[in-house]
Amino acid sequence: MEHELLRYERLAEDLSSIIAGGNLRPGERLPSVRRLSRERQLSVSTVLQALHQLEDRGLVEARPQSGYFVRHAPAPHEQPNARSTPEEAVPVDVSQRLIRVLQTGGRPGVAPLGAALPASTLLPLGALQRLYGSVARRHPRLLEGASHINMDEAALTRQLVLRSVGWAGPLAANEFVITNSCTEALGLCLRAVTQRGDTVVVESPTYHLMLQLLETLGLKALEIPTDPRTGLSIEALDVATRDGQVSACLLVPNASNPLGSMMPDEHKRRLAKLTAERGVAVIEDDIYGDLYFGSKPPRPIKAFDKAGNVLLCSSFSKSLSPALRLGFVAAGRYRRQVALHKTVSSGGTNPITQLVVAEYLESGSYDRHLRSLRRIYERQVDAMRAAVARHFPPATRMTQPLGGFVLWVELPDQVDTTALYDRAIAAGVAYVPGELFSASGMYRNCLRLNCGNPHTPAIEDAVRRLGELLAS
Amino acid sequence: MEHELLRYERLAEDLSSIIAGGNLRPGERLPSVRRLSRERQLSVSTVLQALHQLEDRGLVEARPQSGYFVRHAPAPHEQPNARSTPEEAVPVDVSQRLIRVLQTGGRPGVAPLGAALPASTLLPLGALQRLYGSVARRHPRLLEGASHINMDEAALTRQLVLRSVGWAGPLAANEFVITNSCTEALGLCLRAVTQRGDTVVVESPTYHLMLQLLETLGLKALEIPTDPRTGLSIEALDVATRDGQVSACLLVPNASNPLGSMMPDEHKRRLAKLTAERGVAVIEDDIYGDLYFGSKPPRPIKAFDKAGNVLLCSSFSKSLSPALRLGFVAAGRYRRQVALHKTVSSGGTNPITQLVVAEYLESGSYDRHLRSLRRIYERQVDAMRAAVARHFPPATRMTQPLGGFVLWVELPDQVDTTALYDRAIAAGVAYVPGELFSASGMYRNCLRLNCGNPHTPAIEDAVRRLGELLAS
Repeated sequence: MEHELLRYERLAEDLSSIIAGGNLRPGERLPSVRRLSRERQLSVSTVLQALHQLEDRGLVEARPQSGYFVRHAPAPHEQPNARSTPEEAVPVDVSQRLIRVLQTGGRPGVAPLGAALPASTLLPLGALQRLYGSVARRHPRLLEGASHINMDEAALTRQLVLRSVGWAGPLAANEFVITNSCTEALGLCLRAVTQRGDTVVVESPTYHLMLQLLETLGLKALEIPTDPRTGLSIEALDVATRDGQVSACLLVPNASNPLGSMMPDEHKRRLAKLTAERGVAVIEDDIYGDLYFGSKPPRPIKAFDKAGNVLLCSSFSKSLSPALRLGFVAAGRYRRQVALHKTVSSGGTNPITQLVVAEYLESGSYDRHLRSLRRIYERQVDAMRAAVARHFPPATRMTQPLGGFVLWVELPDQVDTTALYDRAIAAGVAYVPGELFSASGMYRNCLRLNCGNPHTPAIEDAVRRLGELLAS
Repeated sequence: MEHELLRYERLAEDLSSIIAGGNLRPGERLPSVRRLSRERQLSVSTVLQALHQLEDRGLVEARPQSGYFVRHAPAPHEQPNARSTPEEAVPVDVSQRLIRVLQTGGRPGVAPLGAALPASTLLPLGALQRLYGSVARRHPRLLEGASHINMDEAALTRQLVLRSVGWAGPLAANEFVITNSCTEALGLCLRAVTQRGDTVVVESPTYHLMLQLLETLGLKALEIPTDPRTGLSIEALDVATRDGQVSACLLVPNASNPLGSMMPDEHKRRLAKLTAERGVAVIEDDIYGDLYFGSKPPRPIKAFDKAGNVLLCSSFSKSLSPALRLGFVAAGRYRRQVALHKTVSSGGTNPITQLVVAEYLESGSYDRHLRSLRRIYERQVDAMRAAVARHFPPATRMTQPLGGFVLWVELPDQVDTTALYDRAIAAGVAYVPGELFSASGMYRNCLRLNCGNPHTPAIEDAVRRLGELLAS
């Protein structure tokens, strides 16, 4: 088994270095599965496993009846490398700085490259607002729902179960707890599986909200190196969880924020197995899972969970509207504790909003909307990458996101994005300084750009101004 | 000042013992203010202070141009006495038991005398559901609201400010944080003003949710004797907060749950002053404040707060619909911390629901609805008291609530309402066992009855069955 694993990984590595070396160029076809199998003396399934990994990493794409092709990669800029991270878990203190960034970044006249928010023009807000009226009229007894214990609407839970049918084992309806946002779901899960003072593994860099959550709950962050393509290092996780000091992992495996990395299925499988064996709960935020750029939907870690050890959280804030404030968690064997914390935190969840989303999902509109939205976000990310390549200092590195709509930019070491932040706001451009993505003060030469808006001349100009500031 | 205080309190005491002794009977007029002033050699304002205290306690009512009259008190049953409480703060452990009670109490076929929930027939659910449609149609850009930082709708905050205009100093719009329920508001306030391990003063008995909140946040409860008429003992609070060990008070001053007590204005004033001087934050739950039975609306402690030290929480769950999940806090000088915890806990609050409630309040419908609802709840509470008097064992005591819709019943010492609970459910009657209202295991001979439903023959029969069970 271990041997087989190495063989497919070696093939994947060989193919990716052929692509990286320019010997297979974007749009060109890879050798056929049969030929690779024959020449490398590998089984067809091992070859496919290697190709799937490359697909997960966004390097190749499958075309029906034609084989595998190298994907078009926009700019030649190098990706940032995964950083080595501190070996000690550290207490967290980012909230107040972050609040200031989000407040100033939302000012009128400031280009919205800070908070990870989609342009409202890209969202089906009219359809959702009409559904509010129609749902409230057709279900006149919805507001009778009264219990703190269970106000989850069966119609919504059913749609969530249906969306997991493609996985190895679909989710059970009674695993779900409906929440007021993914944010609430993540906090409830942390409360359910940790005690104050515990250590929680996060990606490095990690979404700043994760650090805020750890901070308010008095938890310590253990930052694990994270690859801009394949996400959290499983090897480092293995080492970090050996001594039994880690209570939970808090991750964004699909289109991670800020890196846009996509954890390969095989890594997810290993992570699920490893954490289950060691009694480490896995809280995964799959809010970008529907917003992949590849040809097939990525599965969450939950799809590989046999022990009920993974708590899958998500919402509709990145795809329908951040204002809905509707999320959920499929909590596995922690369902009872999560539901208890939900009861004590905010009681049930508004049933009208639940049914609005359930009906939007049921109508098929959601899937149609997503098909178009994925392409739009991919285009916007590509346009932002091209703009950064044009306007930022020459030594700039940036990610090539595999989904979502944020871009992570690494500048030369001497640039301090925290120190420059106020000048950027004064110049009418927002971003999120890199250090807010680390509990240990890393990434001061990095920043995150929101690509949720159509790439207008105004955005292009904002990137230009930011580039000038960074070069100065 | 101290001298004057004693004189009005002595007059109030004398009048109340005349009423208690039957020398002034329900419906009879009290001596005029002028006569009392002359005979007791007191200023008119001192006499009025005494009469206002009696009014606050529900003993007398003012009738325009006619003077003060003894209120009709339904049953001759004695009220429970305030209990002496443990002098030590204790850790809390009630959640799992409570969840079970709420689950079993909500079963079909079980008379709903458990959870404090109004009958849906009493609530303006049709009007609210229609408003969802109309608001979503007339404000087509509502779902564009996107920031985690501030999604509070100005129209709702404005209505909340307007409702405080009658107080000495009305609230400021920028004090408010809109939340997903009063429950969420209380938890955010506790997180803003306490650290794990801190001691929090609660009433005794106290609303079970308060104990659940303390439990999940790792806080200790210090139970303070609470009078069924006048609420928390200010004298006991004075003693308890002398050594600087108390971080916060968590109270329901108006129509407290479960006692239905109403803290007199003078007590509120003293409490606000005492806690401000000693740096003890006051979190008050005013969810029943609009549901008073007396002739004038009680003010919250917040109305007496000069230091920004009181955090006023409430919602519309007891008056409009528990399913809305919309609450708020006016957080005084803790506004920034509360807003931060709200951002990290669940982001903003759904703007459509906010505007639905804002428009319902603005239309004047809310005040009309409340005028009728107060009388309905008062009648239902009276009917429940009469039924308990008919069917419960002779030595039973019960409260005479001054607002809200729950009744607290004290049975002979040997009755164990926790032990009897399963038999009551089997007999088709729910209640909440008394011990869930105490962190230190008191009140096992007490229970709380929900009077939120019209007193039908089915309810009467449920009370009868419960009375038989308790007598057996």
